[in-house]
Amino acid sequence: MSAPNFPRISPGRLLSRLEELGRIGALPGGGVCRLALSPEDKAGRDWLVERMRELGLEVSIDRIGNIFGLRAGRSAGPPVMVGSHIDTVSTGGIYDGCLGVLAGLEIVAALNEGGIETERPLAVAAFTNEEGARFAPDMMGSLGFVDPKARAEALAARDTAGQSVADCLERIGYAGTDTPFTGGIHAFVELHIEQGPILEAEGVDIGIVEGVQGISWTELVLTGVSAHAGGTPMRLRHDAGHVASSIAAGVRRLVEDLGGDQLGTVGAFDLLPNLVNVVPNRVRMTVDLRNPDEKRLQLAEERLGALAAACAHAEGVSAEGRRLARFEATAFDRQLVDRFEREAKGLGLSTRRMFSGAGHDAQIIGRICPAAMIFIPSIGGISHNIEEFSRPQDIANGAGVLLGVVAQLAGIAEPS
Amino acid sequence: MSAPNFPRISPGRLLSRLEELGRIGALPGGGVCRLALSPEDKAGRDWLVERMRELGLEVSIDRIGNIFGLRAGRSAGPPVMVGSHIDTVSTGGIYDGCLGVLAGLEIVAALNEGGIETERPLAVAAFTNEEGARFAPDMMGSLGFVDPKARAEALAARDTAGQSVADCLERIGYAGTDTPFTGGIHAFVELHIEQGPILEAEGVDIGIVEGVQGISWTELVLTGVSAHAGGTPMRLRHDAGHVASSIAAGVRRLVEDLGGDQLGTVGAFDLLPNLVNVVPNRVRMTVDLRNPDEKRLQLAEERLGALAAACAHAEGVSAEGRRLARFEATAFDRQLVDRFEREAKGLGLSTRRMFSGAGHDAQIIGRICPAAMIFIPSIGGISHNIEEFSRPQDIANGAGVLLGVVAQLAGIAEPS
Repeated sequence: MSAPNFPRISPGRLLSRLEELGRIGALPGGGVCRLALSPEDKAGRDWLVERMRELGLEVSIDRIGNIFGLRAGRSAGPPVMVGSHIDTVSTGGIYDGCLGVLAGLEIVAALNEGGIETERPLAVAAFTNEEGARFAPDMMGSLGFVDPKARAEALAARDTAGQSVADCLERIGYAGTDTPFTGGIHAFVELHIEQGPILEAEGVDIGIVEGVQGISWTELVLTGVSAHAGGTPMRLRHDAGHVASSIAAGVRRLVEDLGGDQLGTVGAFDLLPNLVNVVPNRVRMTVDLRNPDEKRLQLAEERLGALAAACAHAEGVSAEGRRLARFEATAFDRQLVDRFEREAKGLGLSTRRMFSGAGHDAQIIGRICPAAMIFIPSIGGISHNIEEFSRPQDIANGAGVLLGVVAQLAGIAEPS
Repeated sequence: MSAPNFPRISPGRLLSRLEELGRIGALPGGGVCRLALSPEDKAGRDWLVERMRELGLEVSIDRIGNIFGLRAGRSAGPPVMVGSHIDTVSTGGIYDGCLGVLAGLEIVAALNEGGIETERPLAVAAFTNEEGARFAPDMMGSLGFVDPKARAEALAARDTAGQSVADCLERIGYAGTDTPFTGGIHAFVELHIEQGPILEAEGVDIGIVEGVQGISWTELVLTGVSAHAGGTPMRLRHDAGHVASSIAAGVRRLVEDLGGDQLGTVGAFDLLPNLVNVVPNRVRMTVDLRNPDEKRLQLAEERLGALAAACAHAEGVSAEGRRLARFEATAFDRQLVDRFEREAKGLGLSTRRMFSGAGHDAQIIGRICPAAMIFIPSIGGISHNIEEFSRPQDIANGAGVLLGVVAQLAGIAEPS
């Protein structure tokens, strides 16, 4: 760690880059909107590719639009990969995803400044549509990178306006043809904001992520009969809105019953005809269930199915369910997790082992190579919100730990 | 009733007129959309005014856009008024409202054909925005007709696009300046479809409406904190969607607890940001409460207030309530109600006394003169829906009873 020419993060440069990227698709009231494959996403991608080329990286774009920048090593062979995503939800912050990509570029910049070669090549990745806010499923780019079948399905996925991923990639100029890293990847590491309140609440610097919760997204469509709100006795109603509300209220009870780390969220809810004096005949709603224990998550899914069926049956309303996304709970590579913990402690930072509640590209890339990730605190636990914020010191800490581990993996320093 | 030249309804003509008006704003799959003061409403109004002029009626338009057609009597003085409305909800049927207006024109046509003069003048009215689907409150035109203060407020009301009633009336050419019937109205009668399932279920021909349920519309706006669905422990959430669902589910329980004729409907529900993986931070929802007993309705309102406050408090979410519309339960004129019942029975029709669940113009006009109304069956109880349907025979029955009572009130026949 005390080698004379060990590279150093420049926190100011990293922050400036975050702010610069955050101005692309910036919202009037703060925050940013760069929905996947939108004109704003294209502008963000173009900016990123330009930064990669400035740093001397060899840029490749694969068939699902993932962007990779490669820095050669002393030897050829599988690279160490650092990455995350730069797409956002419609009211997102400037840190979610972007921190992981730009910390990768910051590591490259630090290596370049020090004139330091690494043994293995180093790749920085920005994966397409991690958020899933416009196209399902989320983590689409990393999934398409590791699984050709998933890639074919993803290219055919459509947004609510009926546009396909393939067409949108074509339109923004990111329908790539490259097939990089056919020789595999040595390891994948990701720095991300926590997107939850635990680290800040406990005053911990670095979250050592042991794994990611399993994620299950279900869309429910409830179809009843619209009727006049005044003329229809309660006992004769087939109120799709009532069924949807009962399910939504039931999701919270289900989650509380299961307890532990079970999470449940009804995030989307569209009701027709949506008029004050008409009994609703149709509702589309989504249920997001998460648990770090795969068995418990399956139990939650079963209970949701039973809940929806019971609520619909009681009101004489039909219910159809569709899985929008499903990821099993994932454990990260134990040695890599330990390595992150040692590195952080070696830098004098406090750590806490934890599970990620959100899905991340690292869990997908972990299917083909050792992978792990770390978190830094999100102030107030706020994310997917224009108020998202992480302190400059925490950003510097996270990038420093990431650099230390990448340096070990890529071979410029002995493990601490 | 057996006077040689007693006028007769032509069921075919009345039905044809209903179908003709139903083609204006017709929806591809059936039904009709003539939202108040829309281009389709203007086309319907223009068609109606033309029909009135063909029948020799003197047309006047008042300041809230109500359309009146006057047929002179042998003596001057307050007219007998027949009427309803021709605006619809966004997915409405062709009978709701239009039947009452066109039955009035059919009575005029029948009188004209028989060369029959009445003692009192006869007026046919089409009131502006009875539905309230675009501008609140509903029954806006009749309310503006009887209450200058309500009229001033109504003219300033805006739709969700920010357009005012006054501007829209101007744009469609129905910002009238007439002030008809300053000498009062002798009586007001209305024929309407039931918009509920009771008459059909019991095989009854004519509903004798004793009064209208009190109606209370509340808008609730719930404001929480959006957060990541995966990273935020349940105990730290301020989920506006969960609060809204709990209130909606609670409305049903509240209604069941109060029992009797209490009705409750959550018809509109808009959630932000409406994404599968984001805890919602804002919901706007409406609650429609109805009861024929004013005291019970007030109790329901109090319980709704307590329910909303409790649900919001439990989740650390703020709740704001706003009354969108409020009509006290109304009893119709007892003598007029009795008269309708005698007339229907005299025509050999079965009857049933009942309360209206929906608001109607008759309850508003009843503030300034004796008023009453009758219902005919709605098949399946379906209304505010493109499937709305009433049988030709029931339409003929209803128009026949209405004609009989109008003839008595206007003075061409002795009471039966």
